[in-house]
Amino acid sequence: MANDTLEGNLRRVPRQVNRHSTLLDAVEGTLADFLAAQIAALDAVDPALGGMARTTRDLVLAGGKRLRPTFAYWGWRGATGPGEPIDPVLPALAALELMHTFALVHDDVMDESATRRGRPTAHRLFAGQHTRAGRLGDPGRFGTTAAILVGDLCLVWADQLLARTPLSTATLFAVRSRYDRMRVEAVAGQYLDVLGESSPQEWSAERALLVARLKTASYTVQRPLQFGLALAGPVDPDLDDAFCRYGQLVGEAFQLRDDLLGVYGDPAVTGKPADDDLRAGKPTTLLLLARQLAPELALNPAGAVNPADSSGGLTPRLITETGAPAMVEEMIQERVATAVTILADLPIHGDARTALTELAVRATQRPA
Amino acid sequence: MANDTLEGNLRRVPRQVNRHSTLLDAVEGTLADFLAAQIAALDAVDPALGGMARTTRDLVLAGGKRLRPTFAYWGWRGATGPGEPIDPVLPALAALELMHTFALVHDDVMDESATRRGRPTAHRLFAGQHTRAGRLGDPGRFGTTAAILVGDLCLVWADQLLARTPLSTATLFAVRSRYDRMRVEAVAGQYLDVLGESSPQEWSAERALLVARLKTASYTVQRPLQFGLALAGPVDPDLDDAFCRYGQLVGEAFQLRDDLLGVYGDPAVTGKPADDDLRAGKPTTLLLLARQLAPELALNPAGAVNPADSSGGLTPRLITETGAPAMVEEMIQERVATAVTILADLPIHGDARTALTELAVRATQRPA
Repeated sequence: MANDTLEGNLRRVPRQVNRHSTLLDAVEGTLADFLAAQIAALDAVDPALGGMARTTRDLVLAGGKRLRPTFAYWGWRGATGPGEPIDPVLPALAALELMHTFALVHDDVMDESATRRGRPTAHRLFAGQHTRAGRLGDPGRFGTTAAILVGDLCLVWADQLLARTPLSTATLFAVRSRYDRMRVEAVAGQYLDVLGESSPQEWSAERALLVARLKTASYTVQRPLQFGLALAGPVDPDLDDAFCRYGQLVGEAFQLRDDLLGVYGDPAVTGKPADDDLRAGKPTTLLLLARQLAPELALNPAGAVNPADSSGGLTPRLITETGAPAMVEEMIQERVATAVTILADLPIHGDARTALTELAVRATQRPA
Repeated sequence: MANDTLEGNLRRVPRQVNRHSTLLDAVEGTLADFLAAQIAALDAVDPALGGMARTTRDLVLAGGKRLRPTFAYWGWRGATGPGEPIDPVLPALAALELMHTFALVHDDVMDESATRRGRPTAHRLFAGQHTRAGRLGDPGRFGTTAAILVGDLCLVWADQLLARTPLSTATLFAVRSRYDRMRVEAVAGQYLDVLGESSPQEWSAERALLVARLKTASYTVQRPLQFGLALAGPVDPDLDDAFCRYGQLVGEAFQLRDDLLGVYGDPAVTGKPADDDLRAGKPTTLLLLARQLAPELALNPAGAVNPADSSGGLTPRLITETGAPAMVEEMIQERVATAVTILADLPIHGDARTALTELAVRATQRPA
């Protein structure tokens, strides 16, 4: 469910927000306070639970660009304007980040990833604790178990934090329904993504775009924006719909840029090996489009011939020759242009329009 | 988090409830309707998602005694009396069962269990689908990934179902806060339980009882009862406290009975091998009490000598000689007697008193 390239490139410190120096500081502070209280409560039950909670806190506070709280913030601020105090909605904004930790921790278990943001992943941390304590049984299995539980805990904590934002029944219902859709779509997108990697022969460019829509567009942009808008009170359905369309376009554009970088990106900038997606046999829109455009390549799909060579004979040069990269580039430009046009007409405050426009445009320019 | 012995022995079909023939049928129907709608929605996104949702539905509807909805029902009915229509609160009662499926599915991944209730576990089902479809990659890994996601999905679905019970802001807040505590305690109990299995030398009878309190008492009895009570509207704090005490006592008594059956149970009745807990090195209250009473056994703890023989030299006969089983038997009787006394004085309707008394007494009588 996670998308770290996206994370890494949407770094944005928003303007001053009320009593807090920045939105990110405010979200960070809200998370830190909430987590400190949970640690104290679990410590009182059993010190081992306090230890588990402390490890979880370190994972939550280990960084990341707080992208979902940022989009939710601008959705909310766009409707309320600059005068509305942020404090009451901070728990809801920060809850999205706890939910994101849940997604990252479970993702890393599924992918068997060893590191994230240069640090050991949750299951590796717990496996290490198991080994150092000289406990019985397989450290890897304990690590997996603990990480599944830590992810579960973060999802429940997110609900507890969300409950701290004082909202009317109608507003809470609207906020939660967007939050629930976001969570279902994140799970659905991850399931399809994993399925696509193991059955590329059943995949199409349309299906790859669907995964991008679920995993990136919905989870990272669309629903957080709509969640933020709902936090502001009775929702203007036209604005809600516009945010939804903007979010889908921007999210897809981000993912399509990611597809191009996965084949043509500079390893020194992206931090990933060149041709990473080709080697992993990742069924991206770009690669499936290339196969559709060049049927002789499509006749030689990954799994059917040689599972060990899941690139299916595709190389960056062959992909360029199909014309797929130019088409994907055009898809990105179209999406960003439309998203910016949508924003131009919206009845939202100027700061939000500027911020959301910058966030959309950045999708076309990032080198990694 | 799951406790199937408890499940299997609290089978209880409650009296007629309004338009539905039984509470269990009503809960089952609510789950089936909700799941059918989710399947249709996911099918419309992608048939593979519909397939995943159908497998999940089959897991949810595969049986089980619906113990948490039952306790929640009596908590609610105890406060409302027999006249109140059940339909509005059915989604909330059924949500507890979806939450329970989440716990079972993740539990089975953690324990690497092959079957549950005589059927393949979620991760085994998905691994089988992977193999039959001839997909790339390790079926076991795909199964684990899919099961983690299915568990996550059930937890989110539970929230969506809970949101369908129309409640005032104050009532919803009270219901959710009990639900959140229940979920945190279930995760915490499972973490401690796993930790205890891998570090028996750090364990004590008190700590084992704490695990019972979190995993069995809180998750299965206490919080569901309090959740049901909160569904009935403004909570009488004395009644809430009484349910909390009853739930802790009954839940602990159940778990202590489980401890005895884990050593002395008839394999033909329990369905588990004799001495199962001894062989697994499970740090139960019974075994830790035996070690406390016989220090020469305590000096030979599981891991310190031979990790392969985690029974630490204990045998059923040696345990009996320490006097621990008699003490545990007494702990059970005390708890059930106190729980029944608590019920006797409560301002709840007669049906609820009768049902909760029967449920408590059954803990002392079950053979498996």
